[in-house]
Amino acid sequence: MTTTFTTGKVTLLSAGPGDLDLLTIKAAKALAAADVVLLDDLANPEIVSLAPRARVIRVGKRGGCRSTPQAFIQRLMTRYASKGLHVVRVKGGDALLFGRAGEELAALKRADIPFDIVNGISSGFAAAASLGISLTHREHCQGVTFITAHMQDHGEPDWATLAATGTTLAIYMGMSRIENLCAKLMATLPAGTPAAVVQWAGGANERRLVTTLGRLAAEAQAAQLGSPAVILVGDAIGEAEAFDAIAPRYDSRDSLAHAA
Amino acid sequence: MTTTFTTGKVTLLSAGPGDLDLLTIKAAKALAAADVVLLDDLANPEIVSLAPRARVIRVGKRGGCRSTPQAFIQRLMTRYASKGLHVVRVKGGDALLFGRAGEELAALKRADIPFDIVNGISSGFAAAASLGISLTHREHCQGVTFITAHMQDHGEPDWATLAATGTTLAIYMGMSRIENLCAKLMATLPAGTPAAVVQWAGGANERRLVTTLGRLAAEAQAAQLGSPAVILVGDAIGEAEAFDAIAPRYDSRDSLAHAA
Repeated sequence: MTTTFTTGKVTLLSAGPGDLDLLTIKAAKALAAADVVLLDDLANPEIVSLAPRARVIRVGKRGGCRSTPQAFIQRLMTRYASKGLHVVRVKGGDALLFGRAGEELAALKRADIPFDIVNGISSGFAAAASLGISLTHREHCQGVTFITAHMQDHGEPDWATLAATGTTLAIYMGMSRIENLCAKLMATLPAGTPAAVVQWAGGANERRLVTTLGRLAAEAQAAQLGSPAVILVGDAIGEAEAFDAIAPRYDSRDSLAHAA
Repeated sequence: MTTTFTTGKVTLLSAGPGDLDLLTIKAAKALAAADVVLLDDLANPEIVSLAPRARVIRVGKRGGCRSTPQAFIQRLMTRYASKGLHVVRVKGGDALLFGRAGEELAALKRADIPFDIVNGISSGFAAAASLGISLTHREHCQGVTFITAHMQDHGEPDWATLAATGTTLAIYMGMSRIENLCAKLMATLPAGTPAAVVQWAGGANERRLVTTLGRLAAEAQAAQLGSPAVILVGDAIGEAEAFDAIAPRYDSRDSLAHAA
């Protein structure tokens, strides 16, 4: 961003899965220029070291516990930008996948606040990288579906239709209902379908499990894997099995050797 | 990557949608350390300026015209890494979404070549950023499906099932059959479903179209939009309409003001 703004603006910035080296160069430049940083709970807090000029405001909310209401975050963005400041709203993963960006963008459009968006690495991609696999190995599938198990109306996705697509499923926010969603998927998919959980994908404290759909819920619970995590289901995940057999299972990412 | 390798290795590197500022910091570091760069056609060729030490080999293949056979690319990676060199295999977008990464990783595993993977921004995310929308606005959908229209067996995806998921569809490699796939989707989705095409998403020469599913094929052809492009279909895309109405339609990304 080399453009100079005489009025304020908001940058919706994707912080990626945690490792600061997974930020884009564009994100680093936006942070360096930020006057105000609104920081999400799911972003690595060390990211503020890249925004030395900025006032940092933590606006996290986790699961049901809404410590910062969404409307208040939107008011903060609008208020600071209206004062002529460059506000950087930092979100974990890619800002455009889940995470209420739709509502924040709508609020900015309503308030006539200029904005830009900086993409980032969503945790489903980081999880596949850690497992050493493609999300869409063409011998197994023709696509991948990113889905949240946590719906606005507290209902649940149509697991049967999702399974019937034959795409790899990358399920976000599913750990609290993993037993239920695996059971629903098994109405369509065989219990032997390859499946995995990657917690804190791409971070130093990453943990992962590669198994089958039929064993996923019990093994994830036994290993005490929790949120934030991505659940991956589909034949393409089977490519991780041989790799996983020779890599330590519940160890940190740094100790993994991506070689046989 | 600070690890020193006494043997060679391969880094599967995601070059993102084109803009070099959308590379991750990790990607820039890997390129700086590269001995050999194997460069895909879909990656921005200026990326080689970040790999000053490297011998650059172009291994592109476009559509049906296979100028470099896949098996030959895999032999090159293995050969150079076996000589102790750091080979960086550059792929457009995110390497783990389409693009034959599955086969390249399998070849590396078979040959016992150490590897790592650096994620990047896939063009579907860059397209959403340019349109100023979330891929998964929670008032409209609970997920997004990335699908290729170009299948290994020359068949086609099950468009009816994909449409029935209610997820946003991000269709890659679909421009040569846009009329057919729109017709198939309209068996399930209303003709008024919001839809868009973004060609060269995130690049300086980006072009985009926001319309409805029923008008998409004819308008894309009239505007001479071609590959590489992402087709986006779903109610979440409707959030782009108001924005698009005030932004120039087939202009470069640089001239767009993300503000009302």
